[in-house]
Amino acid sequence: MRKVQESQSGSSACLEARASFLDWLEKSRATVDAALSAHFKQLETTLGPHSRLPAAVQYSVRLGGKRLRPILVLETARVCGGEGEQAMPAALAVECLHTFSLIHDDLPAMDDDDLRRGQLTNHKVFGEALAILAGDWLAAHAFTLLAATPRAPELVAALAHATEQMIEGQGADIENEGRPADLELVRYIHARKTAALIEACCRLGALSAGAAEENVATLAQYGHHLGLAFQIMDDVLDASGAVEKLGKSVHKDAVAAKQTYPATLGLAESRAQAGREVEAALKVLDPFGSRAERLRDLARYVICRDH
Amino acid sequence: MRKVQESQSGSSACLEARASFLDWLEKSRATVDAALSAHFKQLETTLGPHSRLPAAVQYSVRLGGKRLRPILVLETARVCGGEGEQAMPAALAVECLHTFSLIHDDLPAMDDDDLRRGQLTNHKVFGEALAILAGDWLAAHAFTLLAATPRAPELVAALAHATEQMIEGQGADIENEGRPADLELVRYIHARKTAALIEACCRLGALSAGAAEENVATLAQYGHHLGLAFQIMDDVLDASGAVEKLGKSVHKDAVAAKQTYPATLGLAESRAQAGREVEAALKVLDPFGSRAERLRDLARYVICRDH
Repeated sequence: MRKVQESQSGSSACLEARASFLDWLEKSRATVDAALSAHFKQLETTLGPHSRLPAAVQYSVRLGGKRLRPILVLETARVCGGEGEQAMPAALAVECLHTFSLIHDDLPAMDDDDLRRGQLTNHKVFGEALAILAGDWLAAHAFTLLAATPRAPELVAALAHATEQMIEGQGADIENEGRPADLELVRYIHARKTAALIEACCRLGALSAGAAEENVATLAQYGHHLGLAFQIMDDVLDASGAVEKLGKSVHKDAVAAKQTYPATLGLAESRAQAGREVEAALKVLDPFGSRAERLRDLARYVICRDH
Repeated sequence: MRKVQESQSGSSACLEARASFLDWLEKSRATVDAALSAHFKQLETTLGPHSRLPAAVQYSVRLGGKRLRPILVLETARVCGGEGEQAMPAALAVECLHTFSLIHDDLPAMDDDDLRRGQLTNHKVFGEALAILAGDWLAAHAFTLLAATPRAPELVAALAHATEQMIEGQGADIENEGRPADLELVRYIHARKTAALIEACCRLGALSAGAAEENVATLAQYGHHLGLAFQIMDDVLDASGAVEKLGKSVHKDAVAAKQTYPATLGLAESRAQAGREVEAALKVLDPFGSRAERLRDLARYVICRDH
């Protein structure tokens, strides 16, 4: 009883990460990794021997990461009564889409990053041309995956719209480097660059499970708040130098004079704002009761993570 | 009678371009231009004021061109009994997709082109970052457009698959520059880089009109041959320096030592091969009788054009 009360209290106190949650997170990651690996296994055979494109695609897909987006798809589907791996095609699609965005964001013309998850970025290994094409291919492939799902029109609409927003956010991010930090602009960028896709993950999961429109909308709202919390903490971790262990460069935002929460509100108020977004995410989940426990843990985890 | 016999004869003789055909082509182009213009009119309002992304998207969409791909969508739909502008969303989608491919192909890391249709390429005006993003956005937007159509799952599957193939073809093209020209490789590249999308245009048009699978497959076959003829002639026009009037650089393929038909078979045999593909395209249309007259004219036009 106490546990349920705590979980629904909306507290933004940092999660004493329960062993069972971290264990579940790791198992979910392994499930996604296995599905990605199986899906992309025969890529050389399918795409032919005439370029390193299949290798470039596989390189970035296999770089790993937390796989939070596909896990969100799978878990929101489960919460809506989805069975087995019903939502796996959508989970793979969002990971393809996310990987596309990382490859393009890392390009010299964009954020010019040499490292991603402690390893060389795609263009450092395969060159810019193949990196651009690998990103392009993964974006197209996400829609190939969604086209074969039962609620394809809604899934495609949701992911395509989120992709447009993500790109609009990245455009505003790039274009406003070096300008005085502005809170309204930071909110515009965060909502599009990060929250839109995380919101879409929840929408895709719920839709894959055949959820009613009301539940789809509620979970999308949860995803929106979660996405905002996630991006604020990303800025905080960069500004506080805490992401070094991930193999990313740190303090990059300040060097590039990016539009970030810490640049507008400082570190402490940024953390508080992330906490408020998590509280909002938790509140939205109330109607789902104990079924949504993992989603609550995920929201709390977002502001406790150190990478 | 004579006209119908001629049109179905499979002759690859260069079309004495009939005034009525050229008039129709120009009217169709204007229809597509108007629809594109109306569709993208409010882009700044929709995407917000925080970057030049809407301007970069609109710049390349408005650069014009022959609009052959959307015209193919509209005409194959009409041939299949489609009414009014039923196929227009699919027509706009393929033009978005095609424009995305042009913007990315022109990038410094790819073909490094300064001019497209006689005007500066996207990255020359907006910089590489925005050009990459404008391409990305247009690709995503193509799927937003298709998601709202009645046969969305089939349309999305066809366009996403064609996009993957187009990117695979571009990968093989880029990766094999400077290697000895190889006919099998040229065929692999042409089938993917160009024919896949033109084939998809015909598929999308037929699907938009609610055509039976048999007619969809037949028109896709027509598109495949048309696409191959189109790309062979593109290579021929580049190699013979005839495309200068279009505002493109010429002899670029030879300078970059690209994999092309002229490089493997010479100009005369390349023209003959293009003619054979047009013949194959015409033959495929036989079951459609006089309804497919414009599609026949289009196929003949492809090898008569001088730009």
